[in-house]
Amino acid sequence: MDSERHSRVRKALGRAGLDLLVCRMPENVLFLSGYWPLSGVSILLFPVDADPVCIVPGTEEQEATAGLSGIRCIAYPAGTLASGDPQAAVRRTLAEQAARLRVRKVGIEGSFESMAPPVNAAEPSFPTEAGFAQLRDAFPGSELKDATGLLYELRALKTDQEAERIRIVNEIAAFGLAAFARHVQPGVRGVDVLAEVERELVVKGTGYRGARHVRAFAQVGTGTAETSVGYRPCEISSTRRLEAGDIALLELAVTADGYWSDRTRPFVAGKPTAEQIRLFDLVVRARDAAVHAIRPGVRAGQVDAAARAVLVEAGLGTEFLHITGHGTGFRYHEPIPIIAPGSEAVLEVGMVFSVEPGVYSPRFGGIRIEDNVLIRPGGADVLGPSERRLSLPL
Amino acid sequence: MDSERHSRVRKALGRAGLDLLVCRMPENVLFLSGYWPLSGVSILLFPVDADPVCIVPGTEEQEATAGLSGIRCIAYPAGTLASGDPQAAVRRTLAEQAARLRVRKVGIEGSFESMAPPVNAAEPSFPTEAGFAQLRDAFPGSELKDATGLLYELRALKTDQEAERIRIVNEIAAFGLAAFARHVQPGVRGVDVLAEVERELVVKGTGYRGARHVRAFAQVGTGTAETSVGYRPCEISSTRRLEAGDIALLELAVTADGYWSDRTRPFVAGKPTAEQIRLFDLVVRARDAAVHAIRPGVRAGQVDAAARAVLVEAGLGTEFLHITGHGTGFRYHEPIPIIAPGSEAVLEVGMVFSVEPGVYSPRFGGIRIEDNVLIRPGGADVLGPSERRLSLPL
Repeated sequence: MDSERHSRVRKALGRAGLDLLVCRMPENVLFLSGYWPLSGVSILLFPVDADPVCIVPGTEEQEATAGLSGIRCIAYPAGTLASGDPQAAVRRTLAEQAARLRVRKVGIEGSFESMAPPVNAAEPSFPTEAGFAQLRDAFPGSELKDATGLLYELRALKTDQEAERIRIVNEIAAFGLAAFARHVQPGVRGVDVLAEVERELVVKGTGYRGARHVRAFAQVGTGTAETSVGYRPCEISSTRRLEAGDIALLELAVTADGYWSDRTRPFVAGKPTAEQIRLFDLVVRARDAAVHAIRPGVRAGQVDAAARAVLVEAGLGTEFLHITGHGTGFRYHEPIPIIAPGSEAVLEVGMVFSVEPGVYSPRFGGIRIEDNVLIRPGGADVLGPSERRLSLPL
Repeated sequence: MDSERHSRVRKALGRAGLDLLVCRMPENVLFLSGYWPLSGVSILLFPVDADPVCIVPGTEEQEATAGLSGIRCIAYPAGTLASGDPQAAVRRTLAEQAARLRVRKVGIEGSFESMAPPVNAAEPSFPTEAGFAQLRDAFPGSELKDATGLLYELRALKTDQEAERIRIVNEIAAFGLAAFARHVQPGVRGVDVLAEVERELVVKGTGYRGARHVRAFAQVGTGTAETSVGYRPCEISSTRRLEAGDIALLELAVTADGYWSDRTRPFVAGKPTAEQIRLFDLVVRARDAAVHAIRPGVRAGQVDAAARAVLVEAGLGTEFLHITGHGTGFRYHEPIPIIAPGSEAVLEVGMVFSVEPGVYSPRFGGIRIEDNVLIRPGGADVLGPSERRLSLPL
């Protein structure tokens, strides 16, 4: 596993007075071990003064052993007639492992409110009240403390290895942005464009620089009404057919082996109007202004202000409805940092976040450009290719 | 909303002595209201003696109002600079609505361990310890009771409207099964087949019989090694290229507007061997034997035994590693009924479940056929087209 990550987590546990972290959300298992769970319940035990252990379903033992280099993997029976009740097996295995540890304070995933799915996104498991009761049973006499804030803080500063994985998923995402530009044409429906973008990402992304599991979640709004609500986390992808001159807006989450990118591009079907070109160029300028403002030590509010000034000066202040960016990498959206007006949060080397100014109006629809950046000592490192164009050459 | 569902839930709450159900898992919001949440936190309050109310993010108000026919929809601010902290808004809105109700016993989603994602599967929100604390704050003096078992029981018996929606998603799933058969060819990779199947489902499924949001989650194993572990909930989709004569196995979850199907098909790239044909025909016979054994009043174990007898008689008892089926419809996998050896559970009209015998061995790989059935008074109604063939006509 990533020795830099291992060392940072240990130090943080020591500072927080925690003897152990127990995580079962796939994103936290990945974060603490490098292994992205496939589908069933995997639980990582990360003690402050001993080696981590990962409890995994027997059905996933092969992948877990390969993914958990240097971490002991304990499989519980699951998936066959012989294996019995998998929930009872998880409880028993957890209790056995807990009994081997002498811990007083245990950090748990107490208040995560949303999650990144495991490899199989169709049916994620999650820690619920019954799961916390299991932990109380497994660690009698120990104090369970909510470590959500600690985990989010640790996740905010990526190691070099982690940043490289997030660069890879952004390089893969660029295949999807290119497919979007090719498929936005008069007569095509939003759902068709969505399907082509996702297909391209799986086909071209899997195997790219070692990526094993690639999944994409695309949303494509078309036309003024749909794209003008494109500031929402979930756009509309409908069976409406693009007309010549329509704007289309792609909101694209991609994961490669559990590392995430969050990108957006607008594109016009056919020939854009002068007004569309003017708005697009302003959003590009706002995005560039934000990227140029990024340096370690700068406050998040200053980056937001840099993007916002461009749009306010152009009379589009009220049309830029949302914040300029948010953390990303271990999930589609992470809470650190938030690039919002007035934010006093200080940017640090290793942070990864989105830069995504956009303008929305029933008059012209929605136009947003979203890239992901890594903070390095010298400033922002834009992850992956970042082509900006509103239409095909005519 | 579905008046039959409304009436059944009210009666069940009365029998259980509950004054109110509070649900925020997308699958339970859908179940109780007909509305499938897009992305953010939606909370449904279903009182035993008053009209239900649904709290939704302002960003999803338009879709929620359309989906929640007959249910009052209360939007909280979200998604823009003006809206402030959405978690605080949820808490405040929940407390306001709770204060209008006089309730002593409140049913909650205490021990669901896995979930169906909302429309946007990239980042589902879920009820965690912090969410339950919110509920305790919102209902001071009320007793919160785990209603997980009650919800699963209610969900097991589908109304006519619900069964029809599950039939539609199974009709859509058949487009994916057909695409699978077309794309399994020598030289093609598992991930390519996966991508083509998912693309076809979004393109052909969206708009089919009114379906608005269609998503597919396909897994394609190829060759003996990959398909022989194909009994797992998550197969391997790899960059391995199919060779002539290779078996491929598709495990396919599809959702249309929050209703799910769970289907499987094997297919051979090129010309199958006599042994592959023999095994396939046996699995088809086992599947048919199970379907013919299904009637209201029959025990689940009898259905399992019918499928198992065919394979045991052929000397493949130990290769049929898993149960014959499980509930489905409001999620990929539902726990009622489980069609397992010796199960005494009695089948009832309105149940929907998978029938999925399969055999697995390092010698020949994995061969499974999975269809979904609805129990009617006269027996099993297989949902959607159910073509069975192992190869293209030569």
